[in-house]
Amino acid sequence: MASDVAIYHGDFISSKDMDTLSVRKDAYLVAEQGIIKGIYDQVPEGCRGLPVTDYSGKLIIPAFSDLHIHASQYIQRGRGMDRLLSDWLNPYTFPQESNFRDIEYAKKIYPRVIRDLMVNGTFHAVFFTTIHYEASSYFFELLQKSGMYAFSGKVNMDMNSPDYLTEETEKSLADTERFVAEHPGDDHVKPILTPRFSPTCSMKLMNGLGRIGQKYHVGLQTHLVESLWEAQTAKDLFPDCRTDADIYEQAGLLGNGPTVFAHVIFPEDRDLELISKYNAYCVHCPDATTNIIAGIMPVHDLKNKHVSLAVGSDIGGGHRPAIYHQIARAVQLSKMKAFYEPEYKAITLANAFYMATAGGGSLFGKVGRLEEGYRFNALVLGGIADEGFPLSPEETLERFCYNGDDRNIEARYLDGKKLEVCQ
Amino acid sequence: MASDVAIYHGDFISSKDMDTLSVRKDAYLVAEQGIIKGIYDQVPEGCRGLPVTDYSGKLIIPAFSDLHIHASQYIQRGRGMDRLLSDWLNPYTFPQESNFRDIEYAKKIYPRVIRDLMVNGTFHAVFFTTIHYEASSYFFELLQKSGMYAFSGKVNMDMNSPDYLTEETEKSLADTERFVAEHPGDDHVKPILTPRFSPTCSMKLMNGLGRIGQKYHVGLQTHLVESLWEAQTAKDLFPDCRTDADIYEQAGLLGNGPTVFAHVIFPEDRDLELISKYNAYCVHCPDATTNIIAGIMPVHDLKNKHVSLAVGSDIGGGHRPAIYHQIARAVQLSKMKAFYEPEYKAITLANAFYMATAGGGSLFGKVGRLEEGYRFNALVLGGIADEGFPLSPEETLERFCYNGDDRNIEARYLDGKKLEVCQ
Repeated sequence: MASDVAIYHGDFISSKDMDTLSVRKDAYLVAEQGIIKGIYDQVPEGCRGLPVTDYSGKLIIPAFSDLHIHASQYIQRGRGMDRLLSDWLNPYTFPQESNFRDIEYAKKIYPRVIRDLMVNGTFHAVFFTTIHYEASSYFFELLQKSGMYAFSGKVNMDMNSPDYLTEETEKSLADTERFVAEHPGDDHVKPILTPRFSPTCSMKLMNGLGRIGQKYHVGLQTHLVESLWEAQTAKDLFPDCRTDADIYEQAGLLGNGPTVFAHVIFPEDRDLELISKYNAYCVHCPDATTNIIAGIMPVHDLKNKHVSLAVGSDIGGGHRPAIYHQIARAVQLSKMKAFYEPEYKAITLANAFYMATAGGGSLFGKVGRLEEGYRFNALVLGGIADEGFPLSPEETLERFCYNGDDRNIEARYLDGKKLEVCQ
Repeated sequence: MASDVAIYHGDFISSKDMDTLSVRKDAYLVAEQGIIKGIYDQVPEGCRGLPVTDYSGKLIIPAFSDLHIHASQYIQRGRGMDRLLSDWLNPYTFPQESNFRDIEYAKKIYPRVIRDLMVNGTFHAVFFTTIHYEASSYFFELLQKSGMYAFSGKVNMDMNSPDYLTEETEKSLADTERFVAEHPGDDHVKPILTPRFSPTCSMKLMNGLGRIGQKYHVGLQTHLVESLWEAQTAKDLFPDCRTDADIYEQAGLLGNGPTVFAHVIFPEDRDLELISKYNAYCVHCPDATTNIIAGIMPVHDLKNKHVSLAVGSDIGGGHRPAIYHQIARAVQLSKMKAFYEPEYKAITLANAFYMATAGGGSLFGKVGRLEEGYRFNALVLGGIADEGFPLSPEETLERFCYNGDDRNIEARYLDGKKLEVCQ
């Protein structure tokens, strides 16, 4: 057993539940073949004499999960951020996405998306690409090579989009079936159906995707009630559906695999009913929904309804790949919501950290916690306290989320293996 | 003349006015003895043959101004950020400030505040310290040695504060007069009167400070209507004053030097009248007013009233020393305000950049612009565009504000001299 066992000494934080951090100071984590056996106050008896990797005074936390990111928009992060949504989609986002018709373009962008996420400690993510089969396939294969845990989908859009980004419905379905059939995935990377959002997809397309989802047992990601406009437009365009989420239910897109709904800012009762029925993940993207003036997810209310909650960078609506910053921003946005809606309760750092680790991580299997049976996908943090002014593990975590950057991630472990990433 | 002349080649951005960026691509800035002569498309005739510092492809912008920062709270940045204000002031802020009764403690903290500001390109700032004479004097002298442009004040508070931070009124006045008399300042660093805010200062103290201000021609900084609570409490505690700003008017504290009001979120007509009369600077601190659930400054409305606007980090209510991040956050917060108050108009990057450079800089003299007669206090930015995807100067600036960090500040010039700062 010895050669497969690794022991790490340091301080550890992992979510016990959504409200509570489990903090283990000056402890020993034992992993075997990349799977955590436990965290102990002393090196356990069977492991005595084995080498210990010393991270004394460092904080070790689970790696992050980003449940909503447009890989194709990476290059435009932090551009046009003072515009309104329509002034941002048309000159920036749509032309940028259309570039991915050229696989050579994709080859320039997609590797750096994965690299920058891993540099920032995101090892588990759910990606939008574009409508393009070839570039989407290329990205899928890149993910498989990277070691990341991921879901990735070819985007579908057959209406209300610029001509150069509008698919013919049959072609969209054929390309999607091919994408799913040719990339069944593995225990790390899986395909996911990705209708952009209801305003850009016809019911015929939705129904066809539902059939593909059922045939191949593939889940769904999309944007859900991101804005009041979207919530209303969904109902206007799909008069036979009660709400935005109901469209996906009626198309047979729910329950074939995991469901990931980005934003969920204005859910109606029917949306909440379906979110609960299918245990859909609702992904809070604080920077993005600020940048596009969408509104603020009612995290606290969804938490009270026991909805599965996660966070996302939503690049390029969001501008930062660092999920730890979205933890801080989630707390900040909840405070802003509490200011404007005094009955609303702000969330805590523990809440947001849970969403970014254990909560989001549960989509990918046994990741996102430092507990027995979980993969040792973890980050070693350092250089956070000011010299001469030590911080507790909880304080270290908080300052990292508010003030830290990738320089503070001193080591990265994925499936128990130390990563060498190029910053 | 030659040896006093420096020529820099690169791209330049400086505010033309609050709405407009002046962009000069591939141009030459000439400075003589640290004072800018102009920016030219070619090296001007009289300077031909002189050496040119080549920053081709880099972006050169004015250094930043931070008009509201509590130097004494630096060590607590990013701590207790998910608490409510009272749960943050009492266990964190007040005990922390009381540590500065010990000059040895101040010596551990204050040098790093200045260093980290300069690392992040802030060369002009207005500081709160604490009530303590000795530590405040020490900080003032440190500022003078640093080369920064600054106003710094010993804090006054004689009521409604923890015992250990409550001054006796007479002692507070005596210490303040001593501070002001012994530190008349120079063209870089000046004293400023600093009653913490109206809820913690008696009218007797305010009146005494007014006399000191008049005698020594020293200006005022304080927090003004940061919250609805503060606006109301000011009126309750000072029933003879019409509003928060009126207290300072009645105490004779306005017009003796510059006036700097932090936050100004809920100004009433009388406040606005006095702000206009005394050309008071109103300082927007986006992260801080989010963190403490204060509200959002009505920047666009104040701009329409031609109020002098600036930004501040407000450490430790704010958590980041980087003013460029506050530029992005000011745009973000204005979007949030526009979401909740649909009649409100979001601000632009140009607006916020102006506040952080030309607007705030005007408090310190000829700094904050890259124009003839202004000091060459400037930052050279690089490493911002992704390889193979060049950005325009405006895009470079925007991405720096949203996504950048101190690694992107490749050179710093203060009074025309290149700084060597230790990151």
